[in-house]
Amino acid sequence: MQLSKIYKPVQEDLVKVDEQFRLLVDSQHNTFPELHKMLSHILVGGKIIRPTLTLLAGKFYNYNQQNLLMMATASELLHIATLVHDDAVDKASVRRGQPTINQIWGVERAVILGDYLFARAGEFTAATGNLRVVRLFAQTLEAISRAELRQGFSSFSLEQTYDQYIERIAGKTASLFAMATESGAILSQAPEDAIQGLKGYGYNLGIAFQIVDDILDFTSTEKEMGKPVGSDLAQGTLTLPSLLLLGRYPEDNPVKRLFNNWGNRQRSIIEALELVHNSSIIDECYQVSSDYSTKACRGLNLLPDNPSRQALLALVDYVVKRRK
Amino acid sequence: MQLSKIYKPVQEDLVKVDEQFRLLVDSQHNTFPELHKMLSHILVGGKIIRPTLTLLAGKFYNYNQQNLLMMATASELLHIATLVHDDAVDKASVRRGQPTINQIWGVERAVILGDYLFARAGEFTAATGNLRVVRLFAQTLEAISRAELRQGFSSFSLEQTYDQYIERIAGKTASLFAMATESGAILSQAPEDAIQGLKGYGYNLGIAFQIVDDILDFTSTEKEMGKPVGSDLAQGTLTLPSLLLLGRYPEDNPVKRLFNNWGNRQRSIIEALELVHNSSIIDECYQVSSDYSTKACRGLNLLPDNPSRQALLALVDYVVKRRK
Repeated sequence: MQLSKIYKPVQEDLVKVDEQFRLLVDSQHNTFPELHKMLSHILVGGKIIRPTLTLLAGKFYNYNQQNLLMMATASELLHIATLVHDDAVDKASVRRGQPTINQIWGVERAVILGDYLFARAGEFTAATGNLRVVRLFAQTLEAISRAELRQGFSSFSLEQTYDQYIERIAGKTASLFAMATESGAILSQAPEDAIQGLKGYGYNLGIAFQIVDDILDFTSTEKEMGKPVGSDLAQGTLTLPSLLLLGRYPEDNPVKRLFNNWGNRQRSIIEALELVHNSSIIDECYQVSSDYSTKACRGLNLLPDNPSRQALLALVDYVVKRRK
Repeated sequence: MQLSKIYKPVQEDLVKVDEQFRLLVDSQHNTFPELHKMLSHILVGGKIIRPTLTLLAGKFYNYNQQNLLMMATASELLHIATLVHDDAVDKASVRRGQPTINQIWGVERAVILGDYLFARAGEFTAATGNLRVVRLFAQTLEAISRAELRQGFSSFSLEQTYDQYIERIAGKTASLFAMATESGAILSQAPEDAIQGLKGYGYNLGIAFQIVDDILDFTSTEKEMGKPVGSDLAQGTLTLPSLLLLGRYPEDNPVKRLFNNWGNRQRSIIEALELVHNSSIIDECYQVSSDYSTKACRGLNLLPDNPSRQALLALVDYVVKRRK
């Protein structure tokens, strides 16, 4: 199924989300030209999976269009804010094929721009008039930043387990996917079991999505990804492929050499990528992702069948099969 | 009037705010020891002017103790989060006589810790159950980060006016003071004119406070301040004393030399400090601060007389007279 078909039930809404972004950018044009430039750079185009999740999850019960729109915009803004800080912290130079904010304007301004985007995301969330989604928004930022801190403190450590990996991507990625769907459900006055089902859908989809992202960091190309491959290893972050690789070759292992700073770093990374390529590790990772996507679909069991449900099911399929 | 007397009407509440901080720190002890260490470092002791403002402003009408407590904690947490990011961005090594978070744990972790603190501050705000204060919280973070960005973009620029200076400190400092008092008023069901009066009080007190802070960066000592003097100039930030100094000596001026990178930087800073000392500039700055404090007091005109009002009036007096 093509991505455009998945987006179809919410296509008009996505145009309106885009319009919110455009208004936010344009409002700075006369008063603060430098901020206008930064916002134009970061808020134009790109992926739209998180607002789509909020919009689709909100289409099952009694929804208010305007509130859903505010929350869909908040979901994406929160995501972008965390990316701006991630890139600043990682000193990443490229994202989505474009230079990062820190690359153009420096780490210092990227930090403050991220704060500004958190604030705007919070304002969109508050505009829903719903305190439960406001609480959820703050808890999600807590989960994300806690997981990012954990990642920072465990970088270049070989003492990481599978459970810790899942816990970390749950905080980093799945919490925001879960917020996107749970908030849509809350704002459409879904019954509590449907809210929990849609939250579970988002959570498990998020885990599945991040595992595929972590696979692609091994298997993709810089051109397809819009950023360098092998960047997780370069940052000292163990992901599922490298965890499995460590389990398979516990003695002489390029990841071990890299993390212990033995020998040439770049050569160790290339060797790790090749070893993963030439093994069944990638298939095993896709299998784990697929298990989570099965759980995601189960979260939709309670929901009435409609085009949104079909789209959410198709999205699961798309996420675990995507190759970029 | 001593500071302890000002705090008297809310002394018991301040103990409870402190207890909230302690709970937040302790809750990480077993699950995330590194985060526990960072929080212990940043959340223990220190100044308490912002929670005091929320608590005092909340004591005029029909208040719910628990909600005021949540918001008072949020006010201080938001302040601390912005300080953590400020220090990371400025690469400051000392604050309140202690090494900064970025000095001990690095800029990267300081950025993410700041995000974590924003999240926790947002959760405390949401715990008030009041959407108006939630909106105010997000708008305040927007104002602060916008002002910080402006400061970044205008650093080492001599093209700054008095009005731009006031606008910047309004965003950086007064917005949070105003949030502290306005939120207290909102949460105690104050009538709208009293809310606006207390908001105005906080705003003008914030401007007066920041002007004195900017004076102290010229006149204090590292020991008294808990951080190096002359740091604004070193960061390329024009404040009221340096703006007046530029006006007084438009030709040969150490600030001009510093910002244009002519000659020895450290010598230019020392010369600027001395020139300011040996002129009436400091008195003029205190006069401007005093004008704002008069405006602050006017914001209290409508309020019933009680110990909180007396304390707020005394606080104004303390702020403009403080020498550290």
